[in-house]
Amino acid sequence: MSAPIVCFVGKSDSGKTTFLEKVIAELRGRGYRIGVIKHDTHASEPDRPGKDTWRLRRAGASRAVLSSARYLSLVEEVEEELPLEEIVRRYLPDVDIVLTEGYKRSAYPKVEVCRAERSRELLCAPGELLAVVSDLRFDLPCPQFGLDDAGGVADLLVERFLRRPAQAPRRVSLRVDGRPVPLKPFIQEMLAGAIRGMLGALHGGKGKRVEVDLEEE
Amino acid sequence: MSAPIVCFVGKSDSGKTTFLEKVIAELRGRGYRIGVIKHDTHASEPDRPGKDTWRLRRAGASRAVLSSARYLSLVEEVEEELPLEEIVRRYLPDVDIVLTEGYKRSAYPKVEVCRAERSRELLCAPGELLAVVSDLRFDLPCPQFGLDDAGGVADLLVERFLRRPAQAPRRVSLRVDGRPVPLKPFIQEMLAGAIRGMLGALHGGKGKRVEVDLEEE
Repeated sequence: MSAPIVCFVGKSDSGKTTFLEKVIAELRGRGYRIGVIKHDTHASEPDRPGKDTWRLRRAGASRAVLSSARYLSLVEEVEEELPLEEIVRRYLPDVDIVLTEGYKRSAYPKVEVCRAERSRELLCAPGELLAVVSDLRFDLPCPQFGLDDAGGVADLLVERFLRRPAQAPRRVSLRVDGRPVPLKPFIQEMLAGAIRGMLGALHGGKGKRVEVDLEEE
Repeated sequence: MSAPIVCFVGKSDSGKTTFLEKVIAELRGRGYRIGVIKHDTHASEPDRPGKDTWRLRRAGASRAVLSSARYLSLVEEVEEELPLEEIVRRYLPDVDIVLTEGYKRSAYPKVEVCRAERSRELLCAPGELLAVVSDLRFDLPCPQFGLDDAGGVADLLVERFLRRPAQAPRRVSLRVDGRPVPLKPFIQEMLAGAIRGMLGALHGGKGKRVEVDLEEE
């Protein structure tokens, strides 16, 4: 049940961020919740050195969160790069679509941004491309959009990834020590979403009925 | 099953961050995984304006993640301040203890840092205090530690919150459409931890046996 992932790729300075800003604004205007993941190939320190959260993390905290009435921010040091699906599972469980900037080596569908002034050649192979955004025209079977046509790309994303009706589980039941425990609808959804999300990678995630049984000494 | 929360509080400039750094280093040295939450009463923008993630978030993304081989960082705009337990549930599901800087109004046990040079009075009522860290002595029933005694505070935290043996579920089974699906141990743990975590607030979270059943049309 995790959100679809679409990668916006292109050479550096091709205009990925600028184009992605417009697509996000379009989708947001249509009511969708969007998660964004930017690939940082330089592994730069995301926090301001000297800030309290930076100090506490450097002292040995695995994760440092800064929370206020307007923002929540988090920095975590990782042993190795997290796969996109793991980032989505952990940190973006409740968005409708995930758009990435970068991740040209991932297996997810790609929208390549290519500006003639920067390059006349594409990074992606034709088979990987969901669409091309460019001021050039390529001999390709995928849809092509101009550098100002964020609306067209948003239409394509909605058509391909967002138009499916939400599949709420029909029934979620919980028994504890054999006795049924009534669950409010939002708890049912949360539980079902989390279990389905976690099992998404397993064969089992696709069945119609999922039964989980925990037993402790 | 979520981690215990202890709040380090004190007047501004009392030395909370400095002391917390030392406690974190102590606990980390003993092998514990520590999550940190700092309360930002000023609601300052956590990202550098102009950065790509800042731009994408401003364009309308609910959450923006920056991921690299060394760090993962995330910024989310929230409608209202998230309760501590919600932050822990979402973002710190896998640490042994959560230490906060601030949150003097929370109901969690508090360690108050009080430096004579800054103030000679405590913020907290005696009943809220797990311990006091100060170069003063107060007439209080709770343990008191010097400003350099991070080891003593770490001992107290271990004694009170970390010495319980880990309760791994004995058995996690999954059936999909009636057929058993084998699960690797780490998947079992993940599933059990997530379900127990979500149900922690419900009456049902405390039973020895939890059975969940999802069915879709």
